[in-house]
Amino acid sequence: MESINIGLAGLGTVAQGFIEIFGQKKQALSDKLGMELKIVKVASRSQKVDLEGLGAVFSTDLSSLVEDSAIDVIIELIGGEQDALELISAALKQNKHVVTANKEVIAKHGNSFKGEIDSGQLRFEAAVAGAIPILQGIGVGMVANDFGSITGIVNGTSNYILSNMSREGASFEESLKQAQELGFAEADPGFDIDGIDAAHKLTIMMALAYGQPFSFDKVITEGISHITSSDIQYASEMGFAIKPLAVVRRSGDEIAAMVYPALVEFDRILSQVNGVMNAIEVESDYAGRLFFSGPGAGSLATASAVVSDLGLIARNQGSAYPRLMGMEKLRITYPDQSTSSCYLRFDVVDEKGIFARITSALSESGISIDEVFQKNLDGGRASIVMITHPASDKDIDNCLSNVGELSEILKPIQRIRVLS
Amino acid sequence: MESINIGLAGLGTVAQGFIEIFGQKKQALSDKLGMELKIVKVASRSQKVDLEGLGAVFSTDLSSLVEDSAIDVIIELIGGEQDALELISAALKQNKHVVTANKEVIAKHGNSFKGEIDSGQLRFEAAVAGAIPILQGIGVGMVANDFGSITGIVNGTSNYILSNMSREGASFEESLKQAQELGFAEADPGFDIDGIDAAHKLTIMMALAYGQPFSFDKVITEGISHITSSDIQYASEMGFAIKPLAVVRRSGDEIAAMVYPALVEFDRILSQVNGVMNAIEVESDYAGRLFFSGPGAGSLATASAVVSDLGLIARNQGSAYPRLMGMEKLRITYPDQSTSSCYLRFDVVDEKGIFARITSALSESGISIDEVFQKNLDGGRASIVMITHPASDKDIDNCLSNVGELSEILKPIQRIRVLS
Repeated sequence: MESINIGLAGLGTVAQGFIEIFGQKKQALSDKLGMELKIVKVASRSQKVDLEGLGAVFSTDLSSLVEDSAIDVIIELIGGEQDALELISAALKQNKHVVTANKEVIAKHGNSFKGEIDSGQLRFEAAVAGAIPILQGIGVGMVANDFGSITGIVNGTSNYILSNMSREGASFEESLKQAQELGFAEADPGFDIDGIDAAHKLTIMMALAYGQPFSFDKVITEGISHITSSDIQYASEMGFAIKPLAVVRRSGDEIAAMVYPALVEFDRILSQVNGVMNAIEVESDYAGRLFFSGPGAGSLATASAVVSDLGLIARNQGSAYPRLMGMEKLRITYPDQSTSSCYLRFDVVDEKGIFARITSALSESGISIDEVFQKNLDGGRASIVMITHPASDKDIDNCLSNVGELSEILKPIQRIRVLS
Repeated sequence: MESINIGLAGLGTVAQGFIEIFGQKKQALSDKLGMELKIVKVASRSQKVDLEGLGAVFSTDLSSLVEDSAIDVIIELIGGEQDALELISAALKQNKHVVTANKEVIAKHGNSFKGEIDSGQLRFEAAVAGAIPILQGIGVGMVANDFGSITGIVNGTSNYILSNMSREGASFEESLKQAQELGFAEADPGFDIDGIDAAHKLTIMMALAYGQPFSFDKVITEGISHITSSDIQYASEMGFAIKPLAVVRRSGDEIAAMVYPALVEFDRILSQVNGVMNAIEVESDYAGRLFFSGPGAGSLATASAVVSDLGLIARNQGSAYPRLMGMEKLRITYPDQSTSSCYLRFDVVDEKGIFARITSALSESGISIDEVFQKNLDGGRASIVMITHPASDKDIDNCLSNVGELSEILKPIQRIRVLS
């Protein structure tokens, strides 16, 4: 190819960032990549922006991109699931390259495109952690390695909310509202705060790192809406930040993945990734522990990753990603949290001896306590806050169910895992 | 290519790491990369290790690798400058791919290989920051971006020494000795502690990021041997770590590069990169501020990056790097530190009024002070320690030359830049 003709699908935030970069860097990119880049057509059903100067045809018909034989690469930035899936499938069938930022489609339907991902025909760096080139890092830079674990902060909205609760002492609801006002959270924030978005991203990293099928349905998700500003304050007093994590771990021939808020020790670099920033820590056999951080979202930052994929298409005829085959012997299981310490908060009626009764009950259930303190609240109430030594989910479940019988306890008992 | 025949030059630490990875992952890598990898010949003048099971021919003649028409890729891990340069040149002339970890050869002679770097025939991910895929990050992941600055901790030996001085309160000499005993520093540590090694790496990052010729001779270097444990202690009391930095900054159409130890605020993630770890912070127009950290040296970590380059050769026929052309209008100049705050330490005879005389003298020279304190030492001496507001190198030079005339001052005056 001496030139690449691009068809752009969508005119939302990321697409506008792509058009802006293209406007500013068309010549520089063409020089760097050794071929001319042209946006020949833009298609969007719902919106129309000023495309003057772009020299591209506009259409409200997405399928016109697929049918246009002059188009080499379709950049799918319409978002959502079904329409994007159809567009990507149709484009690949027409032997076009596809670049997408669509984490949902890749996480849920990536297995339909295994061959195209292996060959580099379908690329999706922008789908995970915005500007951070984490898929290139895992798939190319660390190709020699087996991965012990990947621990990421990959949902900027959740991280913004928890960071804001920490910085301002604000409640979850106030912080969510602020995130929405600043444009960091959708009107329907469920995808973000319930961990779905992070689970999409974790699914993609897991597939590339471990050479497994995309297994979104195996990722356990726990949201952040039950975290209170008191929890953040108490955790901080014990030396921890509360962070929205996406974690996949390998243990022998099993891998397990989970999205959950967790306490992270202050001396770990992950604990200091604040606001809408994303970060990923990767543990590997040869490269050791690598850490990547940067903007996980935003128009230009995400579009920067889209351009990176475009660059790989321009400069390569093969795929920079390793093939996804080769390790089918691994079993994707559900997380076994048997070694997880827990933060527990019991809100109680502050009666004499309650502290002793709770700690004794834990002890009798075989849960040992690493650190514990009591905070007296108004209205004759108190919070008893602790970090346990590592214990299995089952033991903690049983214990909390017993302790929950104590009449002084105002349920629900708060329980947050500690990152080991 | 259905298979890649590798000729390995050298049998030192990194080469042994490469052989170890190859022994463990040959099949997995062949599966991932879609072609068979074979080490067919190993050449080393000085050493011979047990190559049993590798199935490779051994030779003490490096040029036999170049002459062997069966070899597709030569992995140059002999180190040093002249012999490695000759081997790389000869191999490229024979149209072989070359992968090297040799930062000195690339930094000093990279301009001779511009075409081969552009085409991906010559690759050197392992030359900078060990396991961290920073060249891929800058060159591929961030291809859309212009770079405001790159700030790295890229010499593990220097970082180990300063970290050890900070943790243990040890002197520079003790920490250097300890680094040598642990194998983190060479018997002749000049390359590391004088900033030469970091300057090699900075030269390479600068060339790829800014599309400029390799300009090692334009990098100013300042070593770390003048840093004392007191400086580290005092900086810490004011909220800073002292870190061995390699910095390139763009200002308009000029870029300037410098290796130097500097104070870094504790709330910057760079300040927390300790021991032999490396880290690079990249500021860019679209991707924002990206941060990468990981092991910067070590047998397996460095070999992991070598394998990454081998993977790119296997999976690509073109180059994943952007071309180096296209921005020749930039001028590579020497660093203008006009906006740099400075840490200053004056060791003085503790006479009445000396604190006032020094601070007045600074004030008269137009240097304003952000923070200052006096530490009384034994023997009637004291240290006056301060951080200035930003001032030009020239103003600081003039000022220190004036203040240095005060009879109470026991020279030399310590002066360390503060990272802005």
